[in-house]
Amino acid sequence: MNAPMEHALGALALPQPYVLFLGDTTIAGFAKTALGLKDWAPEKCVGELRLPGATVTTGLEALTPSEAAARGARALVIGVANQGGVIPPHWRASLIEALEAGLDLIAGMHMRLSDIPELADAAERFGRRLIDVRVPPARIPVGTGRKRSGKRLLTVGTDCALGKKYTALALARALERRGVDVDFRATGQTGIMIAGGGIPMDAVVSDFEAGAAELLSPDAAEDHWDVIEGQGAITHPSYAAVSLGLLHGSQPDVFVVCHEPGRTEMLGTAGYPLTSVERIVELTIALGSRTNPAIRCGGFAFNTSALGAAEAAELMARESERLGLPVADPIRGGSAFDALVASCLA
Amino acid sequence: MNAPMEHALGALALPQPYVLFLGDTTIAGFAKTALGLKDWAPEKCVGELRLPGATVTTGLEALTPSEAAARGARALVIGVANQGGVIPPHWRASLIEALEAGLDLIAGMHMRLSDIPELADAAERFGRRLIDVRVPPARIPVGTGRKRSGKRLLTVGTDCALGKKYTALALARALERRGVDVDFRATGQTGIMIAGGGIPMDAVVSDFEAGAAELLSPDAAEDHWDVIEGQGAITHPSYAAVSLGLLHGSQPDVFVVCHEPGRTEMLGTAGYPLTSVERIVELTIALGSRTNPAIRCGGFAFNTSALGAAEAAELMARESERLGLPVADPIRGGSAFDALVASCLA
Repeated sequence: MNAPMEHALGALALPQPYVLFLGDTTIAGFAKTALGLKDWAPEKCVGELRLPGATVTTGLEALTPSEAAARGARALVIGVANQGGVIPPHWRASLIEALEAGLDLIAGMHMRLSDIPELADAAERFGRRLIDVRVPPARIPVGTGRKRSGKRLLTVGTDCALGKKYTALALARALERRGVDVDFRATGQTGIMIAGGGIPMDAVVSDFEAGAAELLSPDAAEDHWDVIEGQGAITHPSYAAVSLGLLHGSQPDVFVVCHEPGRTEMLGTAGYPLTSVERIVELTIALGSRTNPAIRCGGFAFNTSALGAAEAAELMARESERLGLPVADPIRGGSAFDALVASCLA
Repeated sequence: MNAPMEHALGALALPQPYVLFLGDTTIAGFAKTALGLKDWAPEKCVGELRLPGATVTTGLEALTPSEAAARGARALVIGVANQGGVIPPHWRASLIEALEAGLDLIAGMHMRLSDIPELADAAERFGRRLIDVRVPPARIPVGTGRKRSGKRLLTVGTDCALGKKYTALALARALERRGVDVDFRATGQTGIMIAGGGIPMDAVVSDFEAGAAELLSPDAAEDHWDVIEGQGAITHPSYAAVSLGLLHGSQPDVFVVCHEPGRTEMLGTAGYPLTSVERIVELTIALGSRTNPAIRCGGFAFNTSALGAAEAAELMARESERLGLPVADPIRGGSAFDALVASCLA
């Protein structure tokens, strides 16, 4: 699992292992990428680099850029965002020090590394690369709809930002534990850093969206599974184009619907009510059956972080009864999650 | 109708009138853009420019670049494609002559005008612009789903390349003739040249696809209609992302399904059967009702160019009976088309 992507996706095969840069962050929410890497790919992280003032930590050892290089790090990952997605001037000395120490820089912010002249100059001077994971590979072909070999699972959702990446990672790991030959296929910046490759689907030109998804999960052995990180929601008024291109191109055999109980409105919209999980199942089958007539729902992943354990368990049991399929919170795991995994593989 | 787009879309407001460049084309199919401009915007075309060897003509007067400029032309439109979408070297002298005569160049080919150093140099030397209509405007916002004022009609289809642009143009013209305040909103290169503005929806990054469609048909008077050129098909395994983003962002009150009877497979795919018109109606309502709960099908536009007049009329009458809505061929016009227009406005 999580091997560097094959040559077709070479543009986004990332140098590893990483040292995680946290800047001077004091808000854990801004360090989602660093914390996600530490949780999901600790073997790829040799340590962290913090600036004075930082209060957030991954718990990994604090290293200077040269110490990180000496431990085998090949890249420094900017594992923190700040408001506006920019790289503030007072971070730059450390980043240049990393380049000088022989590390490439990896980032997924709105501001591109190569647009900062000091960094571009230093990278050239030290012969290092500046890698923006928000930039899709060049020459993505138009999709064809050709059926590919191997099995595929896609996480879909009732909205953005409620656990589609986490669910895909947890399912991929669970499959691996069961001895299944599996790859997690990343479609967003944090997922790409965790996997060491992938395609930032929201940055792909729409004419090539399905083609990018086809490229992301190539032909594989018949018993191999790709577990693909979903994006957006098919009923999201802003992002459904991303979701549908990803659905068509992924041609999933199985999908899992991710949902956050209690969320009532879609993120970033003018008051759009959340779509029900049943409606998402209906639409995903109606649309996904175009490229895979055998598509089916494997179950539901609920993000119950706002609920107590007993309340969450009761809600999920009730919903599972009502929906006729397993409902589990991948973070809570347990037998409900085992049932979800079994249902996906059934 | 077809006034230059408002300032929000200034990046794609085109200088007009045009002189139409046909190169040395001998195949009418390659001159679709020039022929479309001559058919739909003759008042914007002062003449044509052909090279020795050309056998295709728009029927407009042959002019040199300076003659065209003297007649008021502000731009030369490359109205012809060739295999591969490139601009062959032997066209370049004429294009440079046009720049020298004071004309901007407009093209919509895969190869960008500005990537040809001779043209880029000449444009700078003569102070002229190279305008690629396949390049979307910068800074397209993410869609919000906010309901906009005014009425909207979107042409959708059972496949690509079967008359969505033609149908939208014909409907816009018919509405105009009935005294309706109407704008044709172009989403592809030929449509953009005809309208003098628009957004090439297939070239927009997928995260911004719905936002681009929102930008394309802004708030308007309550009795104003935007007639929006559709793209792709919601069940096309390559292009559905474009179609869904355009559908959500257009929030149409009415849609017309464009179809070519006799076509059995989707263009460019691995043998995908064409979706039925009824299924397209179902899916368009299921998905489009997200941003406009009042969405309805106004009827069907059939491309019957492969049929004789009697056969076409009989087929359309039968299908209209079966579907319970008007079916017309916009090219044939007649009372069936009047019925379609009336149904859209009903």
